[in-house]
Amino acid sequence: MSKIAQCSTAGPGVTRLPYTPEHARALEHISDWMRQAGLTPRLDAAATLVGSSASAANGPAVLIGSHQDSVREGGRYDGIMGVLIGCLALERLASEGVELPFPVEVLAFADEEGVRFPTALIGPRALSGRFDPSVLDMQDANSVSLQSALSDFGGTPEAVTTQQRAQDAVRAYLEIHIEQGPVLEQSDAPCGIVTGICGIERNTVTFSGETGHAGTVPMNGRRDALVAASEFITRVHDAARQIDGLRATVGTLSLKPDVVNAIPREAQLTLEVRALSDQVRTEFAASAQVLGTEIANARGVSFAISRTYDQAAVPCNPDLMACLEAAATDEGINAPRLPSGATHDASAMADLCDISMLFVRCKDGVSHCPEEYASDADMDAAIRVTCSYLRRLAAQ
Amino acid sequence: MSKIAQCSTAGPGVTRLPYTPEHARALEHISDWMRQAGLTPRLDAAATLVGSSASAANGPAVLIGSHQDSVREGGRYDGIMGVLIGCLALERLASEGVELPFPVEVLAFADEEGVRFPTALIGPRALSGRFDPSVLDMQDANSVSLQSALSDFGGTPEAVTTQQRAQDAVRAYLEIHIEQGPVLEQSDAPCGIVTGICGIERNTVTFSGETGHAGTVPMNGRRDALVAASEFITRVHDAARQIDGLRATVGTLSLKPDVVNAIPREAQLTLEVRALSDQVRTEFAASAQVLGTEIANARGVSFAISRTYDQAAVPCNPDLMACLEAAATDEGINAPRLPSGATHDASAMADLCDISMLFVRCKDGVSHCPEEYASDADMDAAIRVTCSYLRRLAAQ
Repeated sequence: MSKIAQCSTAGPGVTRLPYTPEHARALEHISDWMRQAGLTPRLDAAATLVGSSASAANGPAVLIGSHQDSVREGGRYDGIMGVLIGCLALERLASEGVELPFPVEVLAFADEEGVRFPTALIGPRALSGRFDPSVLDMQDANSVSLQSALSDFGGTPEAVTTQQRAQDAVRAYLEIHIEQGPVLEQSDAPCGIVTGICGIERNTVTFSGETGHAGTVPMNGRRDALVAASEFITRVHDAARQIDGLRATVGTLSLKPDVVNAIPREAQLTLEVRALSDQVRTEFAASAQVLGTEIANARGVSFAISRTYDQAAVPCNPDLMACLEAAATDEGINAPRLPSGATHDASAMADLCDISMLFVRCKDGVSHCPEEYASDADMDAAIRVTCSYLRRLAAQ
Repeated sequence: MSKIAQCSTAGPGVTRLPYTPEHARALEHISDWMRQAGLTPRLDAAATLVGSSASAANGPAVLIGSHQDSVREGGRYDGIMGVLIGCLALERLASEGVELPFPVEVLAFADEEGVRFPTALIGPRALSGRFDPSVLDMQDANSVSLQSALSDFGGTPEAVTTQQRAQDAVRAYLEIHIEQGPVLEQSDAPCGIVTGICGIERNTVTFSGETGHAGTVPMNGRRDALVAASEFITRVHDAARQIDGLRATVGTLSLKPDVVNAIPREAQLTLEVRALSDQVRTEFAASAQVLGTEIANARGVSFAISRTYDQAAVPCNPDLMACLEAAATDEGINAPRLPSGATHDASAMADLCDISMLFVRCKDGVSHCPEEYASDADMDAAIRVTCSYLRRLAAQ
């Protein structure tokens, strides 16, 4: 992990954006890992590094993968660890003389974080046939288009839309990823079986009242937008705590006029809601709308909410989850079930095939920063679970 | 009022900053008003235009005044209306043949709003001997010092500290001012007797928790600084509503990291508290500190509060209030008592002499903007009350 972490721009932590010299250096390491696992690496049209088994086995392939890129000043594990564990598991099976009766591939996707271009997941979308070619015109901060960055890197922009896999040629996709949250640490578990990837919606919420001089307007005549917004934030948070698996976050808030001696006339905030059940999520958002209206009426202000983003939940396949769970039991590893609150390459791979995910414990629940850490012991547990999972698939 | 409102820079409403060409043009009009009232205008060292009665009467003087300056894009009435009403009241008494048995002065202070320089109230402070000469070095946005602006305007910076009035030479200061709030309009009263000028304190309040991914950190493990701050804002507001005359305002709020998909780790806000009783105010601030600590403990975050500004309340003189009240009764004018939540020249004049203030009804409670409005009828009521007040002082 430390060699590949050096494939980064200078500065704290790891910064490895797609289609950059750091990405190219990382692919040299990943290619070595693949070869040691008995895989043959090649770059596909979307610049996904695909390592394919040389085995003569026929039938639908089993895919394992994650992304090579990081956020700016991110951690050493997010994404890349899943690629490494896939390779190490296959290397271990090969060293034990295990021959899998199906083709295996390890995939190192170029861009999951979406830091360089205002899009992401083009690798898995290309495989599932959901790639929208208009995003090739998107530009990074230096006005370099995705088309040109991909082409210069060795990808084939004009072929991204035509490399779709047939659904019957793929049996399953497994993604191994650092949890990026505190649940496994709190459960004293090295690994976890992901039940699905939460749906996400983002809403812009605006309370509008009336400004006035903080000294001359009596309390009872006020239409203070911030006071209403504050009651909304507290009550939405406390309501979300009562709903298992739901996450509701007000991450931004801005005021007008935002001065010390004036009553705020407008408070605008974002409400993000995530849940494994789209029904639970949309019902919660609807209840937040009712609550906002009720608070606004009681406090003499107006309320508006508009959804700006909506992404459906992606459940993991129950049979694959059961297989992972049995694999963990094989190895004597405690691997509880938990949802993924974050999006992953698996979210897009679900359009192609059944998916499952294995999470690895994350120290202090901290990710997307240099302090991100997964222990060698926990990563080894994930390798063992992956080996056992592949053995079980082979036996089915 | 419309002629003097034209003494403004271009743009919406009135913008008349101190020691500017607009100020100079305004002083020409004010000098005319003073002469028509039988007063002799002169510019004092602090560029206050002082109109003195020519009467041979001896004894302590009765002063009436307010400020000539406006905020940027402010209204036509704030400040200047009090100067005009003082002049018109004296003109009316003179036309009625009333000779006052004490010297009278009308004062048009240069700068009460503090918009051009980061200080204000130098006119009344010079009269009371509380002027701090170090502020002469303060600079405006164009790096012009107050010293040089005042000197170029015709003031005498080196004499500002030596023009202090003797306390026994001044009997009373009356300030007539637009209310800048909705209380008189709600009371259906053209004028109001100010009971005092509220004390003001400003506090910086910081809640500190822990950030985290909005998708991966379960609700029950969160230490969300904004949720705690929101509960604080709502509860402080609702508590302040229960305390007569108190005003508590959270006017600013900022978050870190302030992004849609991260739990806020820090929420910093300003809490301004105003009350006519300094004890009520400081007790309320102390209760806010207890409340903040309680909320922080319950929500797993930390809480800090620090006072950044503290200005004591200034009570109006009870005898002068009674005199104004009797004057209103003389004229059949409903003039209820109310506190002033805003600071005025009278706040600083209180260091020299007993003060009182007469408020004039303000349309929709709106001030510091072009929509600010006081009706001719209400201003005439204020002139009548001022005349009767002076007659009553004369009869004492």
